[in-house]
Amino acid sequence: MTSDLPVLLAAVSILSALHMAFQARRVGWSRMKHKIMPPAVTGPPEFERTFRAHQNSVESYSVFLVVLWISGIFFNEVLAALGGIVYIVSREIYFTGYISESKKRLPGFFLVLSVLLFLTVTATIGIIQAFLDKYLNIRLL
Amino acid sequence: MTSDLPVLLAAVSILSALHMAFQARRVGWSRMKHKIMPPAVTGPPEFERTFRAHQNSVESYSVFLVVLWISGIFFNEVLAALGGIVYIVSREIYFTGYISESKKRLPGFFLVLSVLLFLTVTATIGIIQAFLDKYLNIRLL
Amino acid sequence: MTSDLPVLLAAVSILSALHMAFQARRVGWSRMKHKIMPPAVTGPPEFERTFRAHQNSVESYSVFLVVLWISGIFFNEVLAALGGIVYIVSREIYFTGYISESKKRLPGFFLVLSVLLFLTVTATIGIIQAFLDKYLNIRLL
Repeated sequence: MTSDLPVLLAAVSILSALHMAFQARRVGWSRMKHKIMPPAVTGPPEFERTFRAHQNSVESYSVFLVVLWISGIFFNEVLAALGGIVYIVSREIYFTGYISESKKRLPGFFLVLSVLLFLTVTATIGIIQAFLDKYLNIRLL
Repeated sequence: MTSDLPVLLAAVSILSALHMAFQARRVGWSRMKHKIMPPAVTGPPEFERTFRAHQNSVESYSVFLVVLWISGIFFNEVLAALGGIVYIVSREIYFTGYISESKKRLPGFFLVLSVLLFLTVTATIGIIQAFLDKYLNIRLL
Repeated sequence: MTSDLPVLLAAVSILSALHMAFQARRVGWSRMKHKIMPPAVTGPPEFERTFRAHQNSVESYSVFLVVLWISGIFFNEVLAALGGIVYIVSREIYFTGYISESKKRLPGFFLVLSVLLFLTVTATIGIIQAFLDKYLNIRLL
């Protein structure tokens, strides 16, 4: 019954959710370290970089989930799940780079963009194939 | 195999994800134009309006995806996908209006609200029908 | 046809989307009360607490949806839907507590964390069972 569920996509999604929680946790730790009490979101540069690093992940997270699941269901689950793992690692590189120095967010940022591009392209190919199959009865490959 | 997948919802979701990326990109361009380096999020009014226009889209994006997919799966996929396209256009009207002047965000904002309301109402009707069918064995229409 | 759709998860998701909209609405009311016009996001402490209470919900919302749906589909739909309802109530306790006083956000915050933990643990158990079944042909229970 559960054997046709996309378990790899689900596993990567849970990992990414835990990584989001870990980033939020580190914003909380930075608040304590710099004594920045909510609702304040401004303070020393290190705190502001940590806060923005997390915000940037939040801004992308829904986009990531959309392309991850559509790539995995319409194109290939294993490839999409691998892309998802690379995304989480790239987000970690982005986060740790950003909190040390603003410019050091860039390597992780370009990795993040590359993975999102890969997932978007594969998702789009999968959608085109499914559209041709479903509405025009054309089967590629 | 892929012929029963909700390909229209997937296609609209990918378009909306690309539109989110395009909005983020314009925040980046506004940073360059006004020389506002991350992690700063304050600056000239035009930059702050651009930043907030994107943030507002981020705040609504998960809500949009929820009502889009539930409306499309529980009510009608074609109608929901059309609603999704209207949503993306409304978000663009909101964004370009907002960055030119704060008050000009309002027409797009009310369009966005209207589409979200439409998707929420159709999703709710679909859920009620599915609930009656699944748990009480009552089939409307 | 619709009788095997996860209608309880869909219903809870729509309720949570409406609750997100209600929180956004209260930020709007707080803007009017304190005459804080967009794109400004700073002002009297009560406005800033209301703004941050909503932002915190936005930051968690995708994470909530991920663990809600995976817990509901891979573990147990009724339990996950009940968890979702507790999450919405906890978010309301968090929001109303936070807007009255920063420290009063904490009881709701710990409730929110508890529900997210419950959904994450049940989702993980469900994924492990599905993984063993699908890839190793091992059926627990």
